[in-house]
Amino acid sequence: MVERREPIAVGDAVQRVMEFAFQEKIEFVPLLQAHGRFLAEEVAADDDVPAFNRSPYDGYAIRAIDSQEANSEDPVTFHVVGEIGAGFLFEKEVGFRQAVRIMTGAPIPKGCDAVVMLELTNSFEENNQMYMSIKRSFQAGTNISYKGEDIQKGEILLNKGQYINPGVVALLATFGYDQVPVFRKTIVGVIATGSELLEPSESLQPGKIRNSNAYMIMAQIERAGATVKYFGKFSDNLNQCIEVVKKALQEVDILITTGGVSVGDYDYLPAIYEAIGANVLFNKVAMRPGSVTTVAQRDGQLLFGLSGNPSACYVGFELFARPIIREAQGSKQPHLRKERAVLGSDFKKANPFTRFVRGKAFYQNGQLVALPSGFDKSSAVSSLVEANALIVLPGGSRGYETGMQVDVLLLEDLQGSEWPWNNIVKSYR
Amino acid sequence: MVERREPIAVGDAVQRVMEFAFQEKIEFVPLLQAHGRFLAEEVAADDDVPAFNRSPYDGYAIRAIDSQEANSEDPVTFHVVGEIGAGFLFEKEVGFRQAVRIMTGAPIPKGCDAVVMLELTNSFEENNQMYMSIKRSFQAGTNISYKGEDIQKGEILLNKGQYINPGVVALLATFGYDQVPVFRKTIVGVIATGSELLEPSESLQPGKIRNSNAYMIMAQIERAGATVKYFGKFSDNLNQCIEVVKKALQEVDILITTGGVSVGDYDYLPAIYEAIGANVLFNKVAMRPGSVTTVAQRDGQLLFGLSGNPSACYVGFELFARPIIREAQGSKQPHLRKERAVLGSDFKKANPFTRFVRGKAFYQNGQLVALPSGFDKSSAVSSLVEANALIVLPGGSRGYETGMQVDVLLLEDLQGSEWPWNNIVKSYR
Repeated sequence: MVERREPIAVGDAVQRVMEFAFQEKIEFVPLLQAHGRFLAEEVAADDDVPAFNRSPYDGYAIRAIDSQEANSEDPVTFHVVGEIGAGFLFEKEVGFRQAVRIMTGAPIPKGCDAVVMLELTNSFEENNQMYMSIKRSFQAGTNISYKGEDIQKGEILLNKGQYINPGVVALLATFGYDQVPVFRKTIVGVIATGSELLEPSESLQPGKIRNSNAYMIMAQIERAGATVKYFGKFSDNLNQCIEVVKKALQEVDILITTGGVSVGDYDYLPAIYEAIGANVLFNKVAMRPGSVTTVAQRDGQLLFGLSGNPSACYVGFELFARPIIREAQGSKQPHLRKERAVLGSDFKKANPFTRFVRGKAFYQNGQLVALPSGFDKSSAVSSLVEANALIVLPGGSRGYETGMQVDVLLLEDLQGSEWPWNNIVKSYR
Repeated sequence: MVERREPIAVGDAVQRVMEFAFQEKIEFVPLLQAHGRFLAEEVAADDDVPAFNRSPYDGYAIRAIDSQEANSEDPVTFHVVGEIGAGFLFEKEVGFRQAVRIMTGAPIPKGCDAVVMLELTNSFEENNQMYMSIKRSFQAGTNISYKGEDIQKGEILLNKGQYINPGVVALLATFGYDQVPVFRKTIVGVIATGSELLEPSESLQPGKIRNSNAYMIMAQIERAGATVKYFGKFSDNLNQCIEVVKKALQEVDILITTGGVSVGDYDYLPAIYEAIGANVLFNKVAMRPGSVTTVAQRDGQLLFGLSGNPSACYVGFELFARPIIREAQGSKQPHLRKERAVLGSDFKKANPFTRFVRGKAFYQNGQLVALPSGFDKSSAVSSLVEANALIVLPGGSRGYETGMQVDVLLLEDLQGSEWPWNNIVKSYR
């Protein structure tokens, strides 16, 4: 069966995938495992930060009024009536010309309204009593971190969908989030197709190649932050393939097959989709590489049929699968980060379709430069090694020259972009 | 004991840490777990890629010479003597005006030297035999992916220290790396200090705060790609602290303590370092925040004493601990990525020391812009939430204005920088 396919624009294809909404799934993970996930609930302060007036320095807590007469010629002496470390309370009220030795983070004793830094004091002992003197006066409020100064009780601190970086972890710890509500990781299954494929552990045989695509895709899935399940290789028997797909769909949110989607006699995918009642969203995209990417949906699950060609497979995943995976995990910027860059070398190859050229993007004096990888045959695995960007070269041009402005999509970036295809959907046909 | 400390320049401090060399530690991990690690050995191609001449398309393999007389008025007809899928071999030699139906990835049959794409052929059946005809001639070599075209046997493909991205995973799979030699992850222990600290699971008590620093640091350690071991909180007893440190050092490469390094009566760290025979590399750095960062070494291990102040702790880790952690794991660009940016708002606060201001860096029309976080009190945990960069503001200035050029260090970037302190070590005093 040779199937005829109608190509659609890249932006339209991405949109068809993104219109698919997964059911929101929340789980609680220990705080130590929350880094890199997305918050599934908003977080409000359940108390002020600081929760009490405290000292930001080591020194002496005093009543500011007692210091008013101090000057370099007539120091004022305070009786040191106690000391207080962080985590402890000073129970008595501090009175006239009394001081309390206080450590960073300790609560300000009752009666005190200023802290004098240790370096500005002179301490001494007399008759078994401790004293300290100062040579200047201090205003009330000096060196006090006030209750609620950083965060006030009830304040919304973190929104649903917030990426959990180390700073967020600190806030979650502050407010007692021992367990953190996060979006569940998307579970993505992978099935390889192709009689020619050997596992990496197998020895080479005539006419066969090792299965690099499935392992590459699994690394891409992991980079996107999802959980991988590998179901191995399809058999050559259609009915067995259908059973494997049905079984896999019981365990995953998304199922990716690589290979077997070329227009060829041996392609089982259309038959499999039909057998399981999947609805094809599109099966050809106006782009290179990756034009024979198929996406289908069935009962709240997505099926991606990526090309068996390494570059096409790679690009198909990043453009179409990554955004929906990251959105399902809570990201509000699920697409590859798009930036403007200057083309660092010529790319003269004309093409009627938009090209996504693997390349290296780097900053030169604050300006982003994009350099196409030398060898852009779509079968070239080696050009993927150095690639950290896809350079977007809209079709219909006679080629691109050094110094031209281009869009690049950054592959190793987790910040991502919101919808990046506005205004360019049409031109990317 | 109040200790006097001599501040050293930031670049000097980083250098003292980086001069410390960990013993190289290698481990093998399954290919599926290799993503994000660094290769510990170079990888050479053990075979050509492709390993045999193969077809990049679905079509018919022919002898080009047989097509020379074909034109649109006089098509040439070939006898289809077989078909061959990817992964299979065609055993016979193909002769005069014979063709073999061939699928993408299948080896070119003996005798053939061109592949005609399916779309350019017309196939039909006669007397139970299959035939196909073409209306033009083809050159020898048309549509053949030649053995070794992508990679030649013996070629060094990946260097020691190569970051393992999905493209690298594909290459490793291609060459049968079922198990991958990678640098072992650095093991970093964390001990919190401070009588005021509660675990996130505990209820607030007067004068106490929840331990946010240790959890923040553990997320930073994870972001740096290392393995975390948490040893909880120091007791108030010096001898017990020494025992905990000794025990921890048996299990880790690096030990980080947070808090307790301020100049105060309750600081046990100097006594602990002395008791275990650790040699202090520096204990004060000319910068804000994070000036009271201590680094010590002992028998091939590093000890970091980071401030108890959240921002100082955060910055101290990123500047001093992150690079040595990433270098030990094989990264050749272990430092935070440094870029030039335009300051997006005023920062008028004068300071004699270099400041590392938490902020947000983003691209605007291809230009990097850095915006200081609103609230830069060093105790402010909330300003760490949105920070993805440290803005470097050298000391000695009367303040910085919108539009000025500044260096920024990008926190959420894994590419990193090589040594970023050249030419600026002195000015960063």
